[in-house]
Amino acid sequence: MTVDEFLTEKAKKTERALAEHVEAWHDAPDILRDAVRYSLFAGGKRLRPALALGAAEIISGDDAVALPAACAIEMIHTYSLIHDDLPAMDNDDLRRGKPTLHKVHGEAIAILAGDALLTMAFDVLSQAKDLRVIQEVARAAGVGGMVGGQVLDLQSERKAISLDQLRHLHACKTGALIRVSVRCGALLAEANEEQFEALTRFGEHLGLAFQIADDILDVTGEEDLLGKPIGSDEAKQKSTYPALVGLDRARQLADEAANSAAEALSPFGPEADDFRALARFVVERHH
Amino acid sequence: MTVDEFLTEKAKKTERALAEHVEAWHDAPDILRDAVRYSLFAGGKRLRPALALGAAEIISGDDAVALPAACAIEMIHTYSLIHDDLPAMDNDDLRRGKPTLHKVHGEAIAILAGDALLTMAFDVLSQAKDLRVIQEVARAAGVGGMVGGQVLDLQSERKAISLDQLRHLHACKTGALIRVSVRCGALLAEANEEQFEALTRFGEHLGLAFQIADDILDVTGEEDLLGKPIGSDEAKQKSTYPALVGLDRARQLADEAANSAAEALSPFGPEADDFRALARFVVERHH
Repeated sequence: MTVDEFLTEKAKKTERALAEHVEAWHDAPDILRDAVRYSLFAGGKRLRPALALGAAEIISGDDAVALPAACAIEMIHTYSLIHDDLPAMDNDDLRRGKPTLHKVHGEAIAILAGDALLTMAFDVLSQAKDLRVIQEVARAAGVGGMVGGQVLDLQSERKAISLDQLRHLHACKTGALIRVSVRCGALLAEANEEQFEALTRFGEHLGLAFQIADDILDVTGEEDLLGKPIGSDEAKQKSTYPALVGLDRARQLADEAANSAAEALSPFGPEADDFRALARFVVERHH
Repeated sequence: MTVDEFLTEKAKKTERALAEHVEAWHDAPDILRDAVRYSLFAGGKRLRPALALGAAEIISGDDAVALPAACAIEMIHTYSLIHDDLPAMDNDDLRRGKPTLHKVHGEAIAILAGDALLTMAFDVLSQAKDLRVIQEVARAAGVGGMVGGQVLDLQSERKAISLDQLRHLHACKTGALIRVSVRCGALLAEANEEQFEALTRFGEHLGLAFQIADDILDVTGEEDLLGKPIGSDEAKQKSTYPALVGLDRARQLADEAANSAAEALSPFGPEADDFRALARFVVERHH
């Protein structure tokens, strides 16, 4: 199976389940469902669900047990993009080539659609019937994870920060949710301690590789593929890997992180080949 | 015990526990903790925690089992106030006599502090170790509850709506979280079916009485006590009970709802006296 086939298979399962969840919101105002659907089905790569499902599959050969967690984490990721794009935050007009939600439905509905996705993610997550997973996801998305990282990101605009600070910022803002995706899949498939630790390290290195690659794409990518303007980090005076260490060194760091991710999988055999390929994919992708 | 003593006792327990939760966010950026504390300790009545703790006490004689749920629900209530006050939503400058969070820390931090409270509420709630409670709270705060009600509220501004529509709007926007507070306390104290249903009905009638009284206070209250300008609903052309049925009839409806709340407690003896007094309190309060 190629990486594309792997991602497509996991994305299909996730999107079918996500559509069913939103379909079941019979008591939601129509505009809220429309707004949530607009952002939730905007063509994301579904990397986080693929990690949750893939981790469960590596451990138990079956990914079904991780599907609620995969959906919940994608809902949380989507809420974070909606709120990040708001005028008071990054003020972005485009996301994946489409107008951002607040451009379509206004700021109030965008704020509430984000709130709705975050809230309902925990309804979906409760279906996984595992309290550890709820706590893991809340903490990864919370003040010491994604939300905390977003605050650090705001605070570091127009400011010189060190490479260590940038690494910490990214570990919170994007790393925590990527890491927890893998951990939830492993937990739900009842990984043993060694497997759980190995997959956690894989998730940490993969998250770093993904973020450095993201920073590089913002400099070198093609707008058509990215679905947003090139150079937006620079325009917002955000600290990035290329800005801090130069493009060549950034590429080297991304490669190193991808290699470390693959190495973390050494306790596993061919069942982890999709994850090995994924580690290459995140640094070689074009969008 | 008077209602004031009851509320004060439950508020103290809740605030002590809330302070400990926020204190434990060692990995949160300082400004995020400051912003959360500013809104979380702004002198609310802690009605929802009192309902969760009180319900548990009625059932089992001990409220400790409901403390995580009480804290989580108050965090969710606080996040909803922060987001409601935003310029894109109600655009309020004052809340409980103090500048609203976005006036102090800016819109971006206010959005993120709300997101943080909502997210961390589920971390706190997971400590209750009961998946039913997580699902109950997510749904009450979600698209068929609080967030959905907020959308209905936005959609009904500058529009004539019927009394039925207003009742539905309030049942979602404020009723659902009040109702679930009681239900969580009852669930965690292992109420039997009859007790659970009785307390649920109490919560529903109490929520309605509370909201009608709130609408009345916006017309007749004193600014000093309310901590916000009088007549703000009218200025925003919001549908309210006094606007729809007149002040006298609104007072009558609030009384009826308070009486129905007290009647729902008939399966209980003196252990429910605090709740009976609370039903009177919500329609007779001055803020």
